Amino acid sequence: MDIIVQKFGGSSVADAKKLGNVAGRVIDAYNEGQSVVVVVSAQGDTTDDLLEKAAEVNPSASKREMDVLLSTGEQISMSLLAMTIEKLGYPVVSLTGWQAGIVTNSKYGKARIKSINVERIIKELDSKRIVIVAGFQGLNKYDDITTLGRGGSDTTAVALAAGLHAKACEIYTDVDGVYTADPRIVKNAKKLNDISYDEMLELASLGANVLQNRSVEMASKYNVKLEVKSSFEKVPGTLIKGVSKVEKMLVRGVTKDDNVVLLSLVNIENTPGKAFKIFSMLAKENINVDVILQSIGRGDTKDITFTIDESNAVTAVKVLNDNLSMLGAQSIECARNISKVSVVGAGMASNPGVASLMFEALYDVGININMISTSEIKISVLIDQKDSEKAVRAIHDKFNLA
Amino acid sequence: MDIIVQKFGGSSVADAKKLGNVAGRVIDAYNEGQSVVVVVSAQGDTTDDLLEKAAEVNPSASKREMDVLLSTGEQISMSLLAMTIEKLGYPVVSLTGWQAGIVTNSKYGKARIKSINVERIIKELDSKRIVIVAGFQGLNKYDDITTLGRGGSDTTAVALAAGLHAKACEIYTDVDGVYTADPRIVKNAKKLNDISYDEMLELASLGANVLQNRSVEMASKYNVKLEVKSSFEKVPGTLIKGVSKVEKMLVRGVTKDDNVVLLSLVNIENTPGKAFKIFSMLAKENINVDVILQSIGRGDTKDITFTIDESNAVTAVKVLNDNLSMLGAQSIECARNISKVSVVGAGMASNPGVASLMFEALYDVGININMISTSEIKISVLIDQKDSEKAVRAIHDKFNLA
Repeated sequence: MDIIVQKFGGSSVADAKKLGNVAGRVIDAYNEGQSVVVVVSAQGDTTDDLLEKAAEVNPSASKREMDVLLSTGEQISMSLLAMTIEKLGYPVVSLTGWQAGIVTNSKYGKARIKSINVERIIKELDSKRIVIVAGFQGLNKYDDITTLGRGGSDTTAVALAAGLHAKACEIYTDVDGVYTADPRIVKNAKKLNDISYDEMLELASLGANVLQNRSVEMASKYNVKLEVKSSFEKVPGTLIKGVSKVEKMLVRGVTKDDNVVLLSLVNIENTPGKAFKIFSMLAKENINVDVILQSIGRGDTKDITFTIDESNAVTAVKVLNDNLSMLGAQSIECARNISKVSVVGAGMASNPGVASLMFEALYDVGININMISTSEIKISVLIDQKDSEKAVRAIHDKFNLA
Repeated sequence: MDIIVQKFGGSSVADAKKLGNVAGRVIDAYNEGQSVVVVVSAQGDTTDDLLEKAAEVNPSASKREMDVLLSTGEQISMSLLAMTIEKLGYPVVSLTGWQAGIVTNSKYGKARIKSINVERIIKELDSKRIVIVAGFQGLNKYDDITTLGRGGSDTTAVALAAGLHAKACEIYTDVDGVYTADPRIVKNAKKLNDISYDEMLELASLGANVLQNRSVEMASKYNVKLEVKSSFEKVPGTLIKGVSKVEKMLVRGVTKDDNVVLLSLVNIENTPGKAFKIFSMLAKENINVDVILQSIGRGDTKDITFTIDESNAVTAVKVLNDNLSMLGAQSIECARNISKVSVVGAGMASNPGVASLMFEALYDVGININMISTSEIKISVLIDQKDSEKAVRAIHDKFNLA
């Protein structure tokens, strides 16, 4: 049995017409003789509508109840897609996260998939049915509904592809692949035919907005062949796989992320263990810290500066403020008007010229760099948010990515 | 543990303000030291909105997928009510039908509750939590979501009250009890303090719109003390229990039902077994037939006329049309502009004057009677829909119910 997993995002299933388009894609694959498992997100603005309803009754509702509420979004879209496929005369069944056997840990709102019991899906595929699965959700050991957090439908799709030993996992989205930069910012950005997991991982975590980070990690771990394709146009997408072809091009893409907040703990006591305390506090709240900069101690005190995702800013500031005296810090500063701009590419580590070329591009257009962070395959800089699009264009040009 | 089950309908949980009101009711009962289980319907127009979405993609969607879709309505309202109660500082947990252990048969869209595994609810009540349960839904033996059909939340509430051996089941609605007639039609209609299960059953099935038929049957079977109360005003409601107090009043109420369709099979072969065939066909589609009239045979042919609920008309006509020749019938006629008006009361059977008094009331105001049906405790007549309100008022006056 050749199984294929297809994932369609919220904008691809937003209304009856778009559902019809998705149904066509699904049926094409089914008619080619493949067993098709489809993962869907909630329709268009459903999730935002539900969040608004919740905010009206309780702005600080428990995460358990938020998950009960939000998981209805995918349940609505999965049943509507199933109905659309029924209308076209094909056998189909829709399954919620718990019906599809998706078991997660109990971190409501940000749960991680622990295992998938694929028995029910296999039974339905054996009966020649197209199987529609709700993305973004699962069940924990208490038999309670959990959600994987925004973008979690990608993770659902990859996890199902891994669990079902699918021959491919196709992620359909409103762009037709992974580009060297955001085509809305850089006119001559070029679509990549393929890219490695590691490169995609850096691009995803840096705000390329195409695939969720954890889904790429999982694809890499279980060697799932991922393809990013357009929901609307029938053109080849970008293949994400183990090792990208050796190409001359060192830099694969330029990205920017505006959802970055810079937090600084100022005049913190210059004693050991402070950084550990800060970051373990944040880890307990499930907050990922990205770029970290620690100033050289000025005698008794030092500063610690780091970035987090904007969605975690309120929680992070609260946690740190509650523990200011314990941390021996004077104050917290929070800067929201910044962006992280990054270049990504597997060949970078062995080629020191990349960093200087990037900095030169920024210097050429007069952009000041606040912080720098590097890894094996990426270089990121923090700059003023107002300069971010200009920065992306300048770097894209400098590396001749078009 | 004194358990109380409270059920709130869709209009009672329609928005944030009304949810706040419901939360207040629930917390009052909790603060009195009772273990509170709350059953909710979908908010206001949610079900209609979902039906519209489905109709857009597939007007004849499978009932399985319809149930997947519609069950989200209660999941949304239950989580919002739980959040509202959280905000007020009380421990609460919301449970879907399957989480609450509600097992049904597999008749999608009209499922019947087979059993309730109350383990989870008891565990939550033992932890002093208020438990909110989604009405209207359950799980069948295939682990698929089912719904009980419109008004099924009443049945959920009574079934839970029976399964939990609750001391009472309170049905909160937008009227404050059961009246001798619809107060919107009859200005001086009187609220009943109590009424027997049998009488309520006739009133419910005759369109009193207060309680769903099956919920009263179930309450009678398991001797659940039911009370119909107002969601908005704190006044005593109507108690529904085993035997009503002996009262002089023979007739307890007058009702009308406009959702009645009259079907006639004309010139059907006058041979045995025709009625059996017709009604077993309809039973297979889960369609209840109400008043049945068979004409005296005219040699080779006869007519069979009967009423069904309007919601079943399309299916019934289709089934019968598909089998016209097998039934040996000439045609089907379908009349929609009729109403059923009924008087209900336990003392009726032993008092033949009731029927003639009712017919006299109709004669007084010049209303023609098309069909008549009687039982131990009710008399129903089919009349033109345009006359139905006038008929209710005339009968209410004639029996001095005010």
